[in-house]
Amino acid sequence: MESYIQKAKILVEALPYIQKYYGKIFVIKYGGSAMKNEELKNSIITDIILLKFVGVKPVIVHGGGPEITEMLNKLGKTSKFINGLRVTDSETMQVVEAVLTGNINKSIVSSIIKGGGKAIGFNGKDGFIIEAEKQEMIDENGNKLDLGHVGRVVKINPDIINAVLEKDYIPVIAPIGMDKNGVSYNINADYVAGEIAVSLNAEKLVLITDVEGIYKETRGSKELLSIIKMEDIPNLIKENIITGGMIPKVESCVIALQKGVRRTHIINGNLEHSLLLEIFTDIGIGTMILKGEDDGNE
Amino acid sequence: MESYIQKAKILVEALPYIQKYYGKIFVIKYGGSAMKNEELKNSIITDIILLKFVGVKPVIVHGGGPEITEMLNKLGKTSKFINGLRVTDSETMQVVEAVLTGNINKSIVSSIIKGGGKAIGFNGKDGFIIEAEKQEMIDENGNKLDLGHVGRVVKINPDIINAVLEKDYIPVIAPIGMDKNGVSYNINADYVAGEIAVSLNAEKLVLITDVEGIYKETRGSKELLSIIKMEDIPNLIKENIITGGMIPKVESCVIALQKGVRRTHIINGNLEHSLLLEIFTDIGIGTMILKGEDDGNE
Amino acid sequence: MESYIQKAKILVEALPYIQKYYGKIFVIKYGGSAMKNEELKNSIITDIILLKFVGVKPVIVHGGGPEITEMLNKLGKTSKFINGLRVTDSETMQVVEAVLTGNINKSIVSSIIKGGGKAIGFNGKDGFIIEAEKQEMIDENGNKLDLGHVGRVVKINPDIINAVLEKDYIPVIAPIGMDKNGVSYNINADYVAGEIAVSLNAEKLVLITDVEGIYKETRGSKELLSIIKMEDIPNLIKENIITGGMIPKVESCVIALQKGVRRTHIINGNLEHSLLLEIFTDIGIGTMILKGEDDGNE
Amino acid sequence: MESYIQKAKILVEALPYIQKYYGKIFVIKYGGSAMKNEELKNSIITDIILLKFVGVKPVIVHGGGPEITEMLNKLGKTSKFINGLRVTDSETMQVVEAVLTGNINKSIVSSIIKGGGKAIGFNGKDGFIIEAEKQEMIDENGNKLDLGHVGRVVKINPDIINAVLEKDYIPVIAPIGMDKNGVSYNINADYVAGEIAVSLNAEKLVLITDVEGIYKETRGSKELLSIIKMEDIPNLIKENIITGGMIPKVESCVIALQKGVRRTHIINGNLEHSLLLEIFTDIGIGTMILKGEDDGNE
Amino acid sequence: MESYIQKAKILVEALPYIQKYYGKIFVIKYGGSAMKNEELKNSIITDIILLKFVGVKPVIVHGGGPEITEMLNKLGKTSKFINGLRVTDSETMQVVEAVLTGNINKSIVSSIIKGGGKAIGFNGKDGFIIEAEKQEMIDENGNKLDLGHVGRVVKINPDIINAVLEKDYIPVIAPIGMDKNGVSYNINADYVAGEIAVSLNAEKLVLITDVEGIYKETRGSKELLSIIKMEDIPNLIKENIITGGMIPKVESCVIALQKGVRRTHIINGNLEHSLLLEIFTDIGIGTMILKGEDDGNE
Amino acid sequence: MESYIQKAKILVEALPYIQKYYGKIFVIKYGGSAMKNEELKNSIITDIILLKFVGVKPVIVHGGGPEITEMLNKLGKTSKFINGLRVTDSETMQVVEAVLTGNINKSIVSSIIKGGGKAIGFNGKDGFIIEAEKQEMIDENGNKLDLGHVGRVVKINPDIINAVLEKDYIPVIAPIGMDKNGVSYNINADYVAGEIAVSLNAEKLVLITDVEGIYKETRGSKELLSIIKMEDIPNLIKENIITGGMIPKVESCVIALQKGVRRTHIINGNLEHSLLLEIFTDIGIGTMILKGEDDGNE
Repeated sequence: MESYIQKAKILVEALPYIQKYYGKIFVIKYGGSAMKNEELKNSIITDIILLKFVGVKPVIVHGGGPEITEMLNKLGKTSKFINGLRVTDSETMQVVEAVLTGNINKSIVSSIIKGGGKAIGFNGKDGFIIEAEKQEMIDENGNKLDLGHVGRVVKINPDIINAVLEKDYIPVIAPIGMDKNGVSYNINADYVAGEIAVSLNAEKLVLITDVEGIYKETRGSKELLSIIKMEDIPNLIKENIITGGMIPKVESCVIALQKGVRRTHIINGNLEHSLLLEIFTDIGIGTMILKGEDDGNE
Repeated sequence: MESYIQKAKILVEALPYIQKYYGKIFVIKYGGSAMKNEELKNSIITDIILLKFVGVKPVIVHGGGPEITEMLNKLGKTSKFINGLRVTDSETMQVVEAVLTGNINKSIVSSIIKGGGKAIGFNGKDGFIIEAEKQEMIDENGNKLDLGHVGRVVKINPDIINAVLEKDYIPVIAPIGMDKNGVSYNINADYVAGEIAVSLNAEKLVLITDVEGIYKETRGSKELLSIIKMEDIPNLIKENIITGGMIPKVESCVIALQKGVRRTHIINGNLEHSLLLEIFTDIGIGTMILKGEDDGNE
Repeated sequence: MESYIQKAKILVEALPYIQKYYGKIFVIKYGGSAMKNEELKNSIITDIILLKFVGVKPVIVHGGGPEITEMLNKLGKTSKFINGLRVTDSETMQVVEAVLTGNINKSIVSSIIKGGGKAIGFNGKDGFIIEAEKQEMIDENGNKLDLGHVGRVVKINPDIINAVLEKDYIPVIAPIGMDKNGVSYNINADYVAGEIAVSLNAEKLVLITDVEGIYKETRGSKELLSIIKMEDIPNLIKENIITGGMIPKVESCVIALQKGVRRTHIINGNLEHSLLLEIFTDIGIGTMILKGEDDGNE
Repeated sequence: MESYIQKAKILVEALPYIQKYYGKIFVIKYGGSAMKNEELKNSIITDIILLKFVGVKPVIVHGGGPEITEMLNKLGKTSKFINGLRVTDSETMQVVEAVLTGNINKSIVSSIIKGGGKAIGFNGKDGFIIEAEKQEMIDENGNKLDLGHVGRVVKINPDIINAVLEKDYIPVIAPIGMDKNGVSYNINADYVAGEIAVSLNAEKLVLITDVEGIYKETRGSKELLSIIKMEDIPNLIKENIITGGMIPKVESCVIALQKGVRRTHIINGNLEHSLLLEIFTDIGIGTMILKGEDDGNE
Repeated sequence: MESYIQKAKILVEALPYIQKYYGKIFVIKYGGSAMKNEELKNSIITDIILLKFVGVKPVIVHGGGPEITEMLNKLGKTSKFINGLRVTDSETMQVVEAVLTGNINKSIVSSIIKGGGKAIGFNGKDGFIIEAEKQEMIDENGNKLDLGHVGRVVKINPDIINAVLEKDYIPVIAPIGMDKNGVSYNINADYVAGEIAVSLNAEKLVLITDVEGIYKETRGSKELLSIIKMEDIPNLIKENIITGGMIPKVESCVIALQKGVRRTHIINGNLEHSLLLEIFTDIGIGTMILKGEDDGNE
Repeated sequence: MESYIQKAKILVEALPYIQKYYGKIFVIKYGGSAMKNEELKNSIITDIILLKFVGVKPVIVHGGGPEITEMLNKLGKTSKFINGLRVTDSETMQVVEAVLTGNINKSIVSSIIKGGGKAIGFNGKDGFIIEAEKQEMIDENGNKLDLGHVGRVVKINPDIINAVLEKDYIPVIAPIGMDKNGVSYNINADYVAGEIAVSLNAEKLVLITDVEGIYKETRGSKELLSIIKMEDIPNLIKENIITGGMIPKVESCVIALQKGVRRTHIINGNLEHSLLLEIFTDIGIGTMILKGEDDGNE
């Protein structure tokens, strides 16, 4: 009986967090290991369903998984990368869109439904959610680099997302856009998540990745930066504290904050229930990036 | 960190129960020690607010507390009791209504608001929620006994309760009714809770009392009856397993079940978080009374 | 037959007033003799129901009646008064709240329902309608006086009042507020009525009292001031034309006018149907206080 | 002051009637002298506006006035009558429709608007409210008589009437119908009013005429029949108590009662405020025809 | 089969125009020959019904037809004209209103219903759509000329028009207005159409007349001006290119454009399906008058 | 100009069909050549957009295209067929779902959006639209045949389809279902279209295929059967008039008719604008299958 009462107390401890986020929109970028490992996937999906039932409105933007590379490999397609971006010819684009939309997206949808939630999957063409254009890139000599179907967001049209949120579905969005001529583009999912968070006036943007957040290394000992002010980001990049693949994630957060999202989080999907822990504990388990005027308290 | 993950897992264990009761109405009769002891009161009120935030629609019917007797004592009024019912003259009725509605009811309302919930208190005259009539009682010789302003429910008008539920308030109802001439009646709160549960087509009627549920005593050892079929009640009364003050509670449950409430519970308010434990664990901690065709599983 | 036609003509004479106030909110402070005398009470309640059926939206704020003093007397509590305000210790506050909310408020609700109207009673804790704080008071020597649970309005939250108005109920409000810690306060009903009128953007604030309005005495003959401009109030106080208990009433009116209520009235509840007469005749029967730019015509 | 209080009391006496009819639909056939005499017209229109403001939903069906005959006279058209019905050739029909719809109907609309009400005029073609067909008539020899554009109601389509009632307009309907080929028909306004009352599920059908109701003459003294059961009508016709132009009026009432209208009234438009008097007094001033099971009390 | 495919292609060619005008309001002034000739009338009415079914919201304002003059002739009334405006005494006004509202308006309504559309006819008194006042006119000597019941628009109240548009009816409006005293005025239908277009924030004002549009004559050869900028109108009048009855039409267009209507058209009702042709072809068949900053393309 | 008028007349000829189908749901199975040939694809998509703009509510269910076989070929997967059904192992299922949902479905969505329409693509997992189960198949010896992920419809949940129809989107549905454990199934698109038509209470089910409809061959000359009663289907199959791939199509139609769809059509997608021609001409261009009591006229 004692253990039951302990459990009840833990539920009750969650109440202030539940009250704080009731009716708020969280845009969650879901990617990395948390998509590959079946146990971690279950943990994240369950967290998301729980958030929905305690009154949060989650919106998922997912990345690609190993299935894309696997399929390209099977087809004997090898991709060239420039600045970490896959040069995407039309045939590759077709495979990317098929696997992202038809396999990965629907696998998330089906997991939510199996878990007792309601979900609808979209790619950015549905309801023209994501209007995109070709990503321009210039090399060090000022020459244009052609990355093919790599795109960037021009405009988000959130109508259909809002419509399904109202009907209590969890929208699950593949980061594919198109331009007005119907040309498809593959877009970085972190940026898509940020722009969608802005268009929905979200309370939080949460990026689930494979690292625990941003660390500062001093004399060999690493310390997690639980809170970073967005104004400090440029220095942290200069000082090489934020590097590599973390830079676009941090940029998505900064853009989202600048355009009105209240707070942004980078958390480690390798940790079970990382999403709940970040949101339902005071200290959190990842890095929260916030506006200068925000002291990190409620 | 481990302890945090354990906490997250406990939240996640609650998910199936949350899903099961999402959007359902629970009518909770709140009385006894759980109203007097400040800690127990906080525990119950917090449980109710939590239920509200995870999607349940709680409706509270409360009993009288020691404040009524205290006030009557201060006024030098001594009450006569017949069959456990207080003979209620007009002056007593005035005190009962004042204390029930003005002190006890508003104290519950204010506790919910302090806890971050939204609440509205009613007595049964408001919106004519409870139409009542004089409770007839006959002694062993067939003579009428006059209990004064002791009443019984004639009709529940749930319009205003439904209206405030829609606006996300927790309705808190004092068991006072009136007849068409405006005469006030004091009514047993268990019965009022049962009738209100019926009028709202509630999923559950939960009676919070000072005992742990119904016990069977065999050779000195007491065993809690976790589940009782309503058809077995008459025998249990005959066998003196259900006795005394438990009888009207059980009767309220049976009436509610017969008129369409799905399940009824009698639980011990002296146990911290008893409400959460009864609802969010498989075994429960009190006695569940259900219909014959209901096997007690979901 | 002639007398019937005369009656019909009188109904028809009311039409322009009915048209003028159709759909408008009137906040009516109900107190004094009009609450004690059964006949006057019926007259006022009937007037209010009639107003409701001809399209006005009445909101009642009531004062305390002799029942409070009576109950305190029975309990042997004697109250000390400072500047006309009852020093209210916790025990007194409990009695005040019980009687105001549980007896007086519900008696008004039940009278309206008996009269064929729909009513809901609130005290200011319900839906946190009245957020209050301790009334500060300083004596002539600059020392703080402790009046106990005497409060003033911090904020009105009119959500639940609007919700029940939409469902065609007459809200009846007891002038009890609480602060964020749940501490109860007794507040002057005239001020509460004024603040509620402001929060509802009311057309009229009507204070029903025991005097006929404001009088000017010249050489022994008294003349009722039917219309007073709010700008003239300071002089009228200086000239001792407005004195004593009338001052807080007039102040409530001025505050309400300054914050947007269109017109305010002080009328005599000792006169039968005074409410109808003030509203449905050109001359009125009490004193109308209005803004400087308002000429008193429609 | 006394006279004012008397007036207030008269308003208050109207309250039970106002409560009884709140939100109910009254279909009022308006015709005869009450349309010609300016004072009587004002009296009726004012009564109707008052009914609207106290919560009744009036729907007006009007007859033709002397303007039609006047216009036909000016045009040198003389009409032949068969069984009291004007033989209506196409040219006559054009004049009838023009004057009924363009002059009489709009004159009523404009009077209501001038009186502070909201009104919309229709003829039965608008929204195809009245689908009609040629009225067949056979003479004593079994030969068909051709009455031209005299029609009868085939079907009422109340959609647009309900739409404008919801927007708080008083619909004013000219008794013109058309068939599916667009052929216009002039229809008896009493019958149209009855059929419209049925289609709107009206509480009352009120026919305003030039006589005071139905009278029984015994030994020279006339007595108004205040209440007639519809089952007694055939005998009253046989006994020549109901005769002539009263027969179609009575028939419209009986049809309306049989198809669900609650009560029907025939009242004298020559009496000022006859409409209010019939509805807002117990005895009424005309003849009420009701169903057998209805005892005439509320 | 080939011819069928050709037909399908023609339907498909209309798609871009349908998309462009979906959900937009067109106010159509319907008058002249297109009202007299049965075939042309059918053509216009069918065009309007088709527009309704492909998503346009048409609103019709109609002029008077020969029926008015015919009726006045039959009555032996001869009208005096000043500056092309009929001096309208009360008797004439009564005839004008009767024929316009009762015959012409209802004939349009009935044609739409026969064609499978839904229609409601109004004159400007209904719902007080058109508040009007006497048209002042001064002769060359500065003396007032009394034109009788000739009026001008003071205010349009579009509430009831919007209400019936929402219910999918086509409103048909006779250009009769009244002042606050209920005095009727006959108003130029082109101006009424313009003001109604403004009050509805219409996409287009279309005036159907008896000429093909505005022509420029150079050396004997006439050329239709397909597009005119509203800024060029004063010069075109000075150069006698716009003359006579065309001037008020052009003025109505200019006023409508200045107050927010997007584009205005003057087209020839003598041409079959002129309305469809003007709207569903790039070149159009009449004259489009538009704002200076509008290049005439979409 | 003449040719323009001819065009207008053709538009007008379409009006009766537009009126007939206004607001009705058409479920269109889109497959075969009409998906491969770019010109035919444009023709069908344009027809569907046009239908939407003239008031029809189209719902598209699409089949697989050559892209699936192409992708399987590239991957070196060869499929075994049993009774014309592809034995679908998990790897094949993954490819089928990816290409159907990610390429074919989104290509249709993007074509509609480019054409000026609004579209949302679903596969049957989204909102759990299609609950499916494994298709059981037994060979001639009574042995079970394992077709892998070939499924049949258990239940259609049309909630999300209705939600997007209300918001004026065209839903585009890939014929993929799943069972409650999340196992994916590939389902015959004709059957899916039929079941969806039933769940939406559709007016029409239209199957677009590569043949012109059902033909009867008599002495070498083929005659299209424009109308077939569903009761005659068994005989037509027995007589080998309906054979091969046409049988499942006809079966889908019969099931749809039996469950309440009004009419069903099998038309040739190789013919330009076949959809418009079948619907907007009296004779149609394919085969209409209807219920016995339906004479094929409106």
